[in-house]
Parts: sequence; structure tokens; C-alpha cells
Amino acid sequence: MFVMSSPSGAGKTTLSRGLLDTDEEIVMSVSATTRNPRPGEVDGKDYYFVSVEDFGLMVNRGEFLEHAKVFDNYYGTPRGPVEEALSGGKDVLFDIDWQGTQQLKENAREDVVSIFILPPSTQELERRLHTRAQDSAEIVAKRMAKAADEMSHWAEYDYIIVNQDLDKSRTQIRAILDAERLKRPRQTGLGGFVKGLREGL
Amino acid sequence: MFVMSSPSGAGKTTLSRGLLDTDEEIVMSVSATTRNPRPGEVDGKDYYFVSVEDFGLMVNRGEFLEHAKVFDNYYGTPRGPVEEALSGGKDVLFDIDWQGTQQLKENAREDVVSIFILPPSTQELERRLHTRAQDSAEIVAKRMAKAADEMSHWAEYDYIIVNQDLDKSRTQIRAILDAERLKRPRQTGLGGFVKGLREGL
Repeated sequence: MFVMSSPSGAGKTTLSRGLLDTDEEIVMSVSATTRNPRPGEVDGKDYYFVSVEDFGLMVNRGEFLEHAKVFDNYYGTPRGPVEEALSGGKDVLFDIDWQGTQQLKENAREDVVSIFILPPSTQELERRLHTRAQDSAEIVAKRMAKAADEMSHWAEYDYIIVNQDLDKSRTQIRAILDAERLKRPRQTGLGGFVKGLREGL
Repeated sequence: MFVMSSPSGAGKTTLSRGLLDTDEEIVMSVSATTRNPRPGEVDGKDYYFVSVEDFGLMVNRGEFLEHAKVFDNYYGTPRGPVEEALSGGKDVLFDIDWQGTQQLKENAREDVVSIFILPPSTQELERRLHTRAQDSAEIVAKRMAKAADEMSHWAEYDYIIVNQDLDKSRTQIRAILDAERLKRPRQTGLGGFVKGLREGL
């Protein structure tokens, strides 16, 4: 389970899409949300768009690995598809905030690797927060407050990337994923392989 | 502190040289040994060649981070040059066996990242063990016994690489080193950077 968190506008979405496009071993966890779809968003791909009532039912049935209210909307990670992907030998990528990451670590049976993406500067972050034309000034201000709150949790993450340059950040994320897969406990079957090597000598 | 261990003949020396040639931030720890120099080996570069008496004095003065007897010779890692390199902000690469790795973890003040390199097959390992023309059959047999012993400790390492293909193994070692440098506790100065980002919003 591979978590990427960042303040809105640090480039996380671009980076996670890049990873998904180049690595067949990892799949995205699709969140459920009660917010309205934005133009172009597809139900079941970008989000599962659900009613507030259905969201509440899913919470009560324990169907979420993590869930939270952000501004006026609810977001959550349905447990089923994640566990199915993990059982199938895939890694799962989560685009969630610090609250979700904390809950995931508590609720998940498998190990979590977490990365926090920082913007290179406040100016760059503000510039990026203003580029979504459909957002009102009030929403931008709220998002900046949330960004400051989100960044206060950077030290709870395993790895930190300062996203100065997209290509460099992509390489760094690639390195983290490759390295984590080389960790001993994740390389199942090696015990038998080494036994064979030793007996063959 | 970056440790690479492997049975003799798994390709570790080639891989560590490749890393040193392409990464200016890492330096090799040079071991002291009581064995005779092989043709072409340079004192102070390949090893510090010392007498058995001097080696014993260094042990008594606590000048080794780790030391051991291998076959009829002593090997050890002098503490001074390692601590100097680490103080200068460099990473240090250690080409030591499982006993040395255990001692290093006990004696070192800084954190240790360890990689175990496995050969792809017994056949390949045997082939490589026979390619050093200057070694007698007896030495080869001893080395095979030591290789089997060394491999029994693979599970004590953080990362495992099966050296099937040198280029792939190089990329994997590169990824491990890059990822480890991105770990939060190793990125000093980030606290102030994030504080600045948040206050700027």
C-alpha cells in the first residue's frame, strides 16, 4: 500500500498518474465521495460518486479503510477493491490526506509506505492553487488554509519529495517504489531459492 | 552507512565499483588486512596492508568498527576514515561479510542500510568462483563452503538483490540509495523549509 499525500497544488495528481501509466504492478485506489462530479470526471474511475445517505450506510457497515469530511463533502476509500487488488499481487496507490493516511495505517492489514510531496515554494503553491478556473476566491482561500494544515503533518511520512522538477520527482518516486519492492520481507519465495543455492554447492 | 554483502562470486565487487564511479556522494570504506597484496593491489586504496602484530594493536586500541578472521587472515574496518567521511556529509560503502555487518550495526553511531547480493544460480556462482586463475582448488573449495555459510545470513539484510543481470542490479542499487536518501529523518533542514512554506501562505 503506497500512499502519496501533499497539499493541493503540489503536483501529486500529475505524479501519481505518471506512476500508474508506467507501472503495471500498481493500481489506483478509487475513492468514494459525496461531492458533485466535475466536468469530465467518470464514476468508478475518478471517484465513486455516492449520496450522503449511501456514504453513511457504507461507514456504518465498516466498508471504508479510511474516510473523512473535507470542507462540505465526504471522502472515503472502499475496502473491497483494495483488498482484491492486494490479493491479486498488485500494489495499490492511495491519493489521500494526512487524516486518511493515519486511519489507513490503523485499519489496514498490510504494510503502508507513505510519501509526502512538498511544493518548491509558497509562490509556486499559490500559483498552482489559482489555476483551477472554476474555483471561487473563497474556495481558493479555504484550500490554502487546508494546504497549510496538510503540510504540518509532513513529518509523519516515510519519504519526503520536494517537487521542484517533475522529471526528477518522477525518478524519485520510481526509486522509492523499486527499493521498497527489494526489501527482504516483500520478496516472498527467496527462502526456498537460497536453500537451493546452498544445497547445490 | 551502506553495506553490501554477498558470497564471493556473486558480483558484489563489480557492483560496488560501478556505484562508486557514478556517485560522488559515496566513498568506499578501505579495510585493513593481514593478507598479502595480490598483483596490482595498492596499499591504502584496495586495502591497508598491515602486519598481524599491528592488526592486534589496532584491535586492542578499539580502532576497528568491525573485524574478523577469514580463513588464515584478519580483516577489519578502521573507524577513523569512516567517521571522517560521515562527518563530511558523505555516505560510506562497506564491502564486508555477515559477521562484519553484525558488528558494524552494534558499533556504529550512525544508521546502517544493508543489501545482500545473491547469485542467480549455483552453477553461475561456481563458474565465477573458478575464474580467479591464481587460486588453488583447495582455496576454491574453502570459498564455496564460506559462500554457503554467507548465504545462510541473507535474511539479516534490509534489501535483497538477485544479481541475474548486472545492469538491472546496478539500477536496483541506485534505487535503494536514492530512496534511502529521501527518507524523512535523513533530509535535515526540511523542518525549517516547511515552516517557511506554511508561514508564507
